[in-house]
Amino acid sequence: MAEKPTERRLPSRQQDFAEWYNQIVLRAELADYAPVRGCMIVRPYGWGLWENIQQALDRRFKATGHVNAAFPMLIPRSFIEKESKHVAGFAPELAVVTVGGGEELEEPLVLRPTSETIIGHAYARWVQSYRDLPILINLWNNVVRWELRTKLFLRTLEFYWQEGHTAHATAKEAEEETRRMLDVYADFARNEAAIPVIPGRKSESERFAGADETYSIEAMMGDGKALQAGTSHNLGQNFARAFEIRYLDRGGQLQHCWTTSWGLSTRFIGAIIMVHGDDQGLILPPRLAPLQAVIVPIFKTEAERELTAEAGRKVRDELAGAGIRVKLDERDGVSPGFKFNDWEMRGVPLRIEIGPRDVAAGGVVLARRERPGKEGKSPAKMEGLAATVAQTLESIQKALYDRALAFREAHTRVASNYDEFRAAVEDGFALAWWCGGAECEARIKEETKATMRCIPLERSASAGGSGVCVLCGQPASEQAIFARAY
Amino acid sequence: MAEKPTERRLPSRQQDFAEWYNQIVLRAELADYAPVRGCMIVRPYGWGLWENIQQALDRRFKATGHVNAAFPMLIPRSFIEKESKHVAGFAPELAVVTVGGGEELEEPLVLRPTSETIIGHAYARWVQSYRDLPILINLWNNVVRWELRTKLFLRTLEFYWQEGHTAHATAKEAEEETRRMLDVYADFARNEAAIPVIPGRKSESERFAGADETYSIEAMMGDGKALQAGTSHNLGQNFARAFEIRYLDRGGQLQHCWTTSWGLSTRFIGAIIMVHGDDQGLILPPRLAPLQAVIVPIFKTEAERELTAEAGRKVRDELAGAGIRVKLDERDGVSPGFKFNDWEMRGVPLRIEIGPRDVAAGGVVLARRERPGKEGKSPAKMEGLAATVAQTLESIQKALYDRALAFREAHTRVASNYDEFRAAVEDGFALAWWCGGAECEARIKEETKATMRCIPLERSASAGGSGVCVLCGQPASEQAIFARAY
Repeated sequence: MAEKPTERRLPSRQQDFAEWYNQIVLRAELADYAPVRGCMIVRPYGWGLWENIQQALDRRFKATGHVNAAFPMLIPRSFIEKESKHVAGFAPELAVVTVGGGEELEEPLVLRPTSETIIGHAYARWVQSYRDLPILINLWNNVVRWELRTKLFLRTLEFYWQEGHTAHATAKEAEEETRRMLDVYADFARNEAAIPVIPGRKSESERFAGADETYSIEAMMGDGKALQAGTSHNLGQNFARAFEIRYLDRGGQLQHCWTTSWGLSTRFIGAIIMVHGDDQGLILPPRLAPLQAVIVPIFKTEAERELTAEAGRKVRDELAGAGIRVKLDERDGVSPGFKFNDWEMRGVPLRIEIGPRDVAAGGVVLARRERPGKEGKSPAKMEGLAATVAQTLESIQKALYDRALAFREAHTRVASNYDEFRAAVEDGFALAWWCGGAECEARIKEETKATMRCIPLERSASAGGSGVCVLCGQPASEQAIFARAY
Repeated sequence: MAEKPTERRLPSRQQDFAEWYNQIVLRAELADYAPVRGCMIVRPYGWGLWENIQQALDRRFKATGHVNAAFPMLIPRSFIEKESKHVAGFAPELAVVTVGGGEELEEPLVLRPTSETIIGHAYARWVQSYRDLPILINLWNNVVRWELRTKLFLRTLEFYWQEGHTAHATAKEAEEETRRMLDVYADFARNEAAIPVIPGRKSESERFAGADETYSIEAMMGDGKALQAGTSHNLGQNFARAFEIRYLDRGGQLQHCWTTSWGLSTRFIGAIIMVHGDDQGLILPPRLAPLQAVIVPIFKTEAERELTAEAGRKVRDELAGAGIRVKLDERDGVSPGFKFNDWEMRGVPLRIEIGPRDVAAGGVVLARRERPGKEGKSPAKMEGLAATVAQTLESIQKALYDRALAFREAHTRVASNYDEFRAAVEDGFALAWWCGGAECEARIKEETKATMRCIPLERSASAGGSGVCVLCGQPASEQAIFARAY
């Protein structure tokens, strides 16, 4: 009945990282391919993970004064054309509705690739005076971008995200908001997803289409490549001018607003997989895991089955009562070994094994997902088990973060010349002085496939001072992270 | 500064119910018109209400074993055509994407009007054996139906909803699921939204396109018309056959599954408005209200302002600490009277007034939204205020339900002949014996504009036994509710 796990072993990460990733997504039942090329079905286990991400972010958005709303998916095509850089960036990726109710439409409608334009249209009507500002709105929704090369979660035609859209009276407030939400993303990534991220400023060529400044959090994946895991844009007055979002200031003068936008998408699930996963499958950070612990009874005889099932139910009820997301795996017809592999593939942080000897001794065995084999196993007393499990989950959460940070540090090099730079981006991140010129950036990309990820904002990553550009040797006042990226 | 409320009085419900409704939606800032005809922007206050509806339903879905997932919005047009009744029902309402990434698509894609077809395609791949059943999945998403006559919340091109999709091994299980979810809707409507609903079975002509049986909850609006507030469909094997959703049963035989679907949408917000609202504006049931109580300080001098603001903050913190959704209205430059009207328009269930004399006496004044004027006001002691407010909110919740039920009963008549029937549907609901014939149903609709809403499932509404059809006089075994409807 039970398949032998060896029959379906994953390719190792070393062997084929891309295929390892695809198989985890499918076999952990996070997502599935949809009938339309490039679209995805997010299956219940993947959506449960996304719901936990949503809650962790939404809490932070509300704590910083934001409220949620919903804007239409259908946008008149003319809207996209109102901001010149915006249309240049998004026009090639649009999906267009030309027929509605059996009739050809007079003006084609696009499916939102992002909502700045329709937000601009609405805010222009809603804002009259400084009293109406700031507007701090977030949307949880789906957007469509006609991507040619797609990969589940990382790049799909339709994806799910949140997009925040705010309007302010001054440039200073808009910049503060942009940076505040970047901090929210960094805090979320570090403390909920156990992903060490580098918050930083993007180069002009990597900016959002229509932004004055784009900031991002960048994370290192298990293959050394970078992934942009969330972005926050200071839109200056670009959209306010395009859509006439204006307010009367305290002095009675009509002013254009300053706006921001910021987003984090289901792409983040790809980051969780590629940062934490191992050759046995997914590893989920406990704070976001749909299931934090799974109980597997181990038995041979019918009497043992009843004994361990009863103990399992008791443990489940106790843990659930303490707010731990737990499941008792009572499946018939599959062996404990099959169940172990199954839950390892799905990345449940903690397995609780209960055999007859454990029951007799008033205990269980805890097996930590992130430490394979015997090293991750330890006995625990039934008494006070909920507290022990909660502590162990916290310990796993921390261990995942520490491990990801150590990995990133081991694969990040300060490159003082172009040879070192080339070697560094073969293996991971290069931190290098950069003159700020688009030409150097373009040549680096062409020659090494590495892109300028960001100029780190935090002191620990960027030492300050000045140096010379790693490529052209001209004076440079900033250090940047370069890496190949998803 | 403050506008005089009389300047913008709502039309009364008596005078112009449709316009009263539109103005409440706009002026309570629940929703706004979008640039695309028939689409809507759900503003933060309206979305906050929807989020509370979502939570109340989602809790019930999870308690009955369902999990959430996400399916693509884009569906190949050919999918819609696979179930013959389904395509007949939905083809006229489709929005079609014909261009993607600048290229004409080989096969046009439709924006989902509902997801049965794409669900069928996926379940066919996921289900192999009886061990894979039941599948109990719910989706929270947006759908598009190209409606010609639209009205905010009640009928929009794009709307928000949940759609549950389940697959079962037997006809019995599918019917049980269909009825279970109808019960969930009825329980939600009654206990969270304070809306008395009639759960019942639809006639063949009113069935969902592709269903064997459709059930709905029907509510009476403040103008006596009916609104279908949620539906649950037994799809039989129709979609399982169209999409080949099959499983190996315990005997090793290949069988088609039995499927269901059920949905409740942002239309429900329209029902809340039209059931509870009055000539001053919206009235929200406390359990769903984004704000349950608002505190308005009343003062003349600066010293009084400080005194009442301080008391207001104390009350706010105490109530918030007790889990009550409360706001302190500290706006400058508008009078208490303006604030009263403003919060009445927005339907906040309870107003807490704090004047200097209240502070001196260690109390506040509570003003219930559903009882206008002095009748709804009562003093309350500062001590134990959170408990008093919680009790008052429960009392308001109950009063709203009782009032809506009394209204429905006052406007429902048992019609034993066609004259009585005509009079009844002029005023509200008619309960009448009906032969079950589509011809009688069609003639009634043509002559009275009333449609067959449902055959009530609960004993209290439908007395059982038998009679003669109110129109044709033929023997009838069922009583049905007829009404004009939204």
